[in-house]
Amino acid sequence: MTAPLFPVLRLKPKADARRIRHGHPWAWSDDLVLDRRARKLAPGALAILEDAERQPLGVGVATIEARIGLRLLDRDPAARIDADWLRARLAGALDLRARLYDAPYYRLVHAEGDGLPGLIVDRFGDTLVLQPNAIWLEDRLQDLVSILSDLTGAATLIKNGTARARAAEGLPDETQVLAGHAPDGPIPVPMTGATYAADVMGGQKTGLFYDQRPNHAFAASLARGARVLDVFSHVGGFALACLAQGAESAVAVDASDAALALAGQGAALSGVAERFSTRLGDAFDVMAALQAEGAQFDLVICDPPAFAPSKQALQQGLRAYERVARLAADLVAPGGTLILCSCSHAADLSKFRMACLRGIGRAGRDPRLIYTGFAGPDHPQHPSLTETGYLKALAFRLMP
Amino acid sequence: MTAPLFPVLRLKPKADARRIRHGHPWAWSDDLVLDRRARKLAPGALAILEDAERQPLGVGVATIEARIGLRLLDRDPAARIDADWLRARLAGALDLRARLYDAPYYRLVHAEGDGLPGLIVDRFGDTLVLQPNAIWLEDRLQDLVSILSDLTGAATLIKNGTARARAAEGLPDETQVLAGHAPDGPIPVPMTGATYAADVMGGQKTGLFYDQRPNHAFAASLARGARVLDVFSHVGGFALACLAQGAESAVAVDASDAALALAGQGAALSGVAERFSTRLGDAFDVMAALQAEGAQFDLVICDPPAFAPSKQALQQGLRAYERVARLAADLVAPGGTLILCSCSHAADLSKFRMACLRGIGRAGRDPRLIYTGFAGPDHPQHPSLTETGYLKALAFRLMP
Repeated sequence: MTAPLFPVLRLKPKADARRIRHGHPWAWSDDLVLDRRARKLAPGALAILEDAERQPLGVGVATIEARIGLRLLDRDPAARIDADWLRARLAGALDLRARLYDAPYYRLVHAEGDGLPGLIVDRFGDTLVLQPNAIWLEDRLQDLVSILSDLTGAATLIKNGTARARAAEGLPDETQVLAGHAPDGPIPVPMTGATYAADVMGGQKTGLFYDQRPNHAFAASLARGARVLDVFSHVGGFALACLAQGAESAVAVDASDAALALAGQGAALSGVAERFSTRLGDAFDVMAALQAEGAQFDLVICDPPAFAPSKQALQQGLRAYERVARLAADLVAPGGTLILCSCSHAADLSKFRMACLRGIGRAGRDPRLIYTGFAGPDHPQHPSLTETGYLKALAFRLMP
Repeated sequence: MTAPLFPVLRLKPKADARRIRHGHPWAWSDDLVLDRRARKLAPGALAILEDAERQPLGVGVATIEARIGLRLLDRDPAARIDADWLRARLAGALDLRARLYDAPYYRLVHAEGDGLPGLIVDRFGDTLVLQPNAIWLEDRLQDLVSILSDLTGAATLIKNGTARARAAEGLPDETQVLAGHAPDGPIPVPMTGATYAADVMGGQKTGLFYDQRPNHAFAASLARGARVLDVFSHVGGFALACLAQGAESAVAVDASDAALALAGQGAALSGVAERFSTRLGDAFDVMAALQAEGAQFDLVICDPPAFAPSKQALQQGLRAYERVARLAADLVAPGGTLILCSCSHAADLSKFRMACLRGIGRAGRDPRLIYTGFAGPDHPQHPSLTETGYLKALAFRLMP
């Protein structure tokens, strides 16, 4: 036997090694033997994980100061985590998306879902936006850039370093151009029949949320001839997809002027500007105003920010979802459809559905569930990490 | 106040009237006051449901000998359940499908999901197949036929009276032509880019399962250039959709010669017969044989019959799903996808997913969940009846 390639971190005898052996990719710091040697490991260093009987469980990234003490990268303890290893993981991720999509607009890398903990890459044609949200990735940024350029042919690579996860690893909040040139305006992104305007330098996250794609498509399947209201619209994800599928009209509501301006640009790019309008303001206020005006829509979509981002905020968040449902249900014409979304980690599908049903019931409407959707397949989920299953979309038909 | 239109059934004081007031459409027989007058109600008779304080909850269909003593039809106690009432419900159901689909091939009526307890209607172009699985519907068959003909223009209406639910209501097992002429062979059904052959007179249920449509479409989105294996294929639902989207080849496995013959006819109708083949036999045996041959597929789909049709059969059923997952995972090429379906009422999403993951783990594979699907929107679910959410489809990418 040769010496291990990396320092060893060992599980305590009381730790549940089976959980990891059966697929979980994380070891908790509390479960690790933190002797003097272990404490010397720099955050982001590679280490071999062993169980208490010194049987290796794989190679991972150590961050022993954090709650998650080690994230496994490879179950093979002899794996070298070098440029070839990175290339194989990135090529695997690209292979899935190339199968799924006709055009190069998608989430290319979804962290643990693609075997690359901490790394997010969104692709906008020949522009890639990277979120290296861990030290081990920051240390390998040059490799990542050259391999991604080579695999995809992308000319422009941008680092978006604004995620909160970076602060936990002591990384700076910074956005910079890693290769090519910063685009001189929003990038046109064809998706679900529409064309969106994505501001990859200044937008929320990376300028566009690819995760809602299947839910946009479902909404659009109901849109022919419909009056559509898209509340918390961001850059118009639902509204533009519905207009592209023949909606009679669509109104986008958002509190961000910048987001509505991008939605308007997207409407122009999609050739639907005549049927598109916006209302700037707090979503609750705008919905109340629309009700006072007696407005009715055949399809109402609400995709609010995470009202329940943590367990502590769960009850308050569920009440907010209920309130959204109640206000929105009032605006749905008889026989029309209400689509309610949640991107809250803490509100699971069942709790979110119950909150929606309470709100719809309080509006005096009789619902039928016709669709339950999640993030698209370019957001693969590690089955042990339910946290990654954050996005839910429910469509209710409100009986005539 | 005028006298009620129908006899009254009253809830016992201990019964939970709030459950019904808040949306549940059923009253349990155990919760009803079964006095001499109530016992005189013929099965299928209409009755007003009142709470213990004599406040009306609506009009429903009484079947006091059964566990479900009354199914609400209308929350308005003054509603007349006549031909106009039936027409409004059926027109509402049609309106939703006409919005959703370009072509008239869908489930037109899905029982409580469309406010018509017991009634299933599947549409195959100008042929409708009705399942009137309750006495109150059997009593109104002529109204149903004339309204459905009028609304849809359908020339042929067939009654499929083979459902087990009919026996519970004392109705005979019989299939008959209600209008027009029995088709002289399978009906071609365009769906998801393919054309299926549906035997509406002799097939399982009504000859084709429309519920899997969105899951067919997801599988097809992964099919370009793929080698596909469709296990428990019935008439080739997944295989033909994948071939229509450019799969290199597809093999359909089923124990029914008749189903595979229809799958072959569908392949010919779809123009993909050259890339389509079948293996007749027990699915477990065929999967074991394929493994022995060293066969590998880029996409494997398993859509078995309900292994866990009841709570009593749950543990045994979950073991069967686990076994399917283990056998099928062995046949998936590195980086390929495994789609596992369940139509078991008793196995909820979480239990089914766990069984799948145990099977995939026992095959030594590392899965990522890329899709969770349900029945399509032409199968609306009453939110209080979780039983109607029977169909689940999970897609796992097996990491390279």
